[in-house]
Amino acid sequence: MIYNKLTAEEAADFIKNDDLIGFSGFTAAGCPKVITMALAVKAENEHAKGNPFKVGIYTGASTGDSIDGVLSRAHAIKFRTPYQSNKDMRTELNNHEAHYFDLHLSELPQYLRYGFLAKPKFAILEACDITDDGKIYLTSAVGIAPTVARIADYIFIELNKYHPKALTGMHDIYEPADPPVRREIPICSPDDRIGVPYIQVDPKKIIGVVETNLPNEVGGFTPSDEVTNKIGENVASFLSAEMKAGRIPLSFLPVQSGVGNIANAVLGAMGANKDIPPFSIYTEVIQDSVISLMKEGNVTFASGCSLTLSTPALEEVYKNLDFFKDRMVLRPQEISNSPEIARRLGLISINTALEADIFGNINSTHVVGTKMMNGIGGSGDFCRNAYLSIFTTPSVAKGGKISAIVPMVAHVDHSEHSVKILVTEHGVADLRGLSPIQRAEVIIENCVDPLYKGLLRKYLTLGQKGHTPQNMMTALSFHQAFNETGDMRNVNWE
Amino acid sequence: MIYNKLTAEEAADFIKNDDLIGFSGFTAAGCPKVITMALAVKAENEHAKGNPFKVGIYTGASTGDSIDGVLSRAHAIKFRTPYQSNKDMRTELNNHEAHYFDLHLSELPQYLRYGFLAKPKFAILEACDITDDGKIYLTSAVGIAPTVARIADYIFIELNKYHPKALTGMHDIYEPADPPVRREIPICSPDDRIGVPYIQVDPKKIIGVVETNLPNEVGGFTPSDEVTNKIGENVASFLSAEMKAGRIPLSFLPVQSGVGNIANAVLGAMGANKDIPPFSIYTEVIQDSVISLMKEGNVTFASGCSLTLSTPALEEVYKNLDFFKDRMVLRPQEISNSPEIARRLGLISINTALEADIFGNINSTHVVGTKMMNGIGGSGDFCRNAYLSIFTTPSVAKGGKISAIVPMVAHVDHSEHSVKILVTEHGVADLRGLSPIQRAEVIIENCVDPLYKGLLRKYLTLGQKGHTPQNMMTALSFHQAFNETGDMRNVNWE
Repeated sequence: MIYNKLTAEEAADFIKNDDLIGFSGFTAAGCPKVITMALAVKAENEHAKGNPFKVGIYTGASTGDSIDGVLSRAHAIKFRTPYQSNKDMRTELNNHEAHYFDLHLSELPQYLRYGFLAKPKFAILEACDITDDGKIYLTSAVGIAPTVARIADYIFIELNKYHPKALTGMHDIYEPADPPVRREIPICSPDDRIGVPYIQVDPKKIIGVVETNLPNEVGGFTPSDEVTNKIGENVASFLSAEMKAGRIPLSFLPVQSGVGNIANAVLGAMGANKDIPPFSIYTEVIQDSVISLMKEGNVTFASGCSLTLSTPALEEVYKNLDFFKDRMVLRPQEISNSPEIARRLGLISINTALEADIFGNINSTHVVGTKMMNGIGGSGDFCRNAYLSIFTTPSVAKGGKISAIVPMVAHVDHSEHSVKILVTEHGVADLRGLSPIQRAEVIIENCVDPLYKGLLRKYLTLGQKGHTPQNMMTALSFHQAFNETGDMRNVNWE
Repeated sequence: MIYNKLTAEEAADFIKNDDLIGFSGFTAAGCPKVITMALAVKAENEHAKGNPFKVGIYTGASTGDSIDGVLSRAHAIKFRTPYQSNKDMRTELNNHEAHYFDLHLSELPQYLRYGFLAKPKFAILEACDITDDGKIYLTSAVGIAPTVARIADYIFIELNKYHPKALTGMHDIYEPADPPVRREIPICSPDDRIGVPYIQVDPKKIIGVVETNLPNEVGGFTPSDEVTNKIGENVASFLSAEMKAGRIPLSFLPVQSGVGNIANAVLGAMGANKDIPPFSIYTEVIQDSVISLMKEGNVTFASGCSLTLSTPALEEVYKNLDFFKDRMVLRPQEISNSPEIARRLGLISINTALEADIFGNINSTHVVGTKMMNGIGGSGDFCRNAYLSIFTTPSVAKGGKISAIVPMVAHVDHSEHSVKILVTEHGVADLRGLSPIQRAEVIIENCVDPLYKGLLRKYLTLGQKGHTPQNMMTALSFHQAFNETGDMRNVNWE
């Protein structure tokens, strides 16, 4: 190998206050791990000396604790985009200690290329292999790696032996040209390959290689329960009925599914439903449930941006790469989340809402309208352009003190126009072709918990005259009541 | 001609209560005119006899008064989608007399093909020519005509001699296949032609032809004034500076521009700016200002869905078709508004906001959160996928009693994620890469009217802790104050 071997500390030493860094990875999969740990120590030392030390961070999506966690606890993050899910990072951005720019995940690479965000000085990439002529083979995710590798001035590689070199070939690296000379992205089926299996860079940009041998820091997901299983069954029954009604082709359509225990329950229920044929996946995050469905023959192919698998599931994939490499591809998020492809393929998109309102708007990000949870992620890329966009949520939280369905969401991430179907454990609201008042009626009837049906029906009678009968005095009263009393039912409408 | 010649009354007689009708046209351009007039008379006669008579209506966008106006006044509309701008139609839908489904304009054709909305029994198309083998040549717009012509059971043609047969060749008719066999839409430049100049139907579906000779019912737009001119100059200066900074290519990018006097002022200012080179247009509505800019050589090509021109401007185009047919193409709205194409071409999209908030969300549709003005139209198709999405609005209305910029918009059509630049007569807020609190600061500083700067700065101090410091008690207080006192400044924050 022609490259300098560095320790993590030596690499971190190149990075100065105010520098911008772009990372490989998407979720905790495929993220570098050791240089940022060393960088956090460096930041703490600088802070102890009274020196400022903060960096700006571009990632694919969320990261492992070794990026967002350690750097947040060291108060070393000045700017962060496009998505995070780390407890300490969340605290920093909600306190305005770090400026967080929440962005549709497909857009970050072009935002960087267009010059809308300053270009990163450094790219730090986790690789399973690298050649002397500058071919970088990534590990278990792609994210924004191709773009930051190309536009950064300098590159560090974390060469991670935990990921086998036999992974090469799993990735399909393609970066579109920019307007006015951009062409179509030539994917017409989830298994179409359009690029090359590596990132090509100028070897002179690679400052050095840090060798590691560390697994991904993928956290466990909450297991399914009665509520999520019922949501899964409701989605599966709805899709099967749509197919019978001729509104979904008998060969079915590719599925995009969000992350977490509801998504796992939905995919599980779809696999168990005898009427739904084996289907393909075109999504960002490939979760454990996809691997199970693939082994059972219920999922025929999965295109994603990351293998966000538990350690046992990832090791199973790595032991059976001959099987899985024929059935999977990992793409840059600009392609996995491409609006162009989502619409062309006709995705069935299934994402989780934090909060919905009776008129069909969705809050995916802001707890009680102010605190950022994680970010919009890919949900907007997919739902706006999907063939059929489905949002799921348990109808209540905190033992009924919170209704997930309110008069007006306290923050809108997906407008009424992006939401075709809403599903809770109580049922399915099909919003297609309905006016706002019709949507309110079907959502209250089919999806709202009995604890809140009466209140929401009463709210409709308070509505001011017009197409969408909101009431500006009381539209946010559920949130006010929660802030003041800890229970949304304590609204004051006198 | 092999087709039956009918009177408008004879044609209207085929249409029964509860029938669904799809129309050609986009805005008042290219819409049928006489069959719906006769249908309104029929509806009134039926109502006088005590019989129900209402129909469902699919159009391209808004229509002339002869569709939405006369049918609304006859209370003959049961269902309406996807956009309207008629005073009487607006009254009907805000009173819930007609159910209105507000939809991104690019989505209606596939909504119909997918079976998400019931298929129309009748298509009524305005044509400048028709052949015995079923080739229909449209007039001054396309809209949803190709799709409704194909899926409707029966077709009526209004053969309108006002529009010259020499118009043939102006249209580029292309209807994509549906998933899972859809391919790329092969447009890589605004002047690419991908289809044929006519709609091909089975001649047996054509029940009859009604001959007419009527101009389009395009209303006049409010002329530019000092405020709109200043907005135009602010946009043009901003774009010129972006070009100099290397964030817009020196060859410039295709422009999409909304409808109305602000849009005219913006295009005028861009044409007058010496630093902006001649540019192309990829939009839905081609307005008078485009024709002027084209004659002056400042616009090189215009792709649109309609020629929404004043009668003198349309007649000028018709007298000089040799010149204009080389420089213009009319497309179905599924193509003119295609998210795939907007992103590939890298549009600079410029649309008007009804209301914006300090965090960068846009309300395009709902007056004080409840009353529908027109509909979302194509603004969502374009702004979400544009290279650079700009929203414009005068900072105040009603002599200062309304601030166009509020703490929280009362209805969200375009979330913070779809809005890159906000422009008022006071200045430009560049929101790219900013966190919510940073956006609030730049919007208040650069765009808000002095009448409201203090109030909005004070609002920020009321904000609850978190990423987006809204306050659920007072977020909608500007709207409450307006509803109660007629002036947003009378907020009560004690």
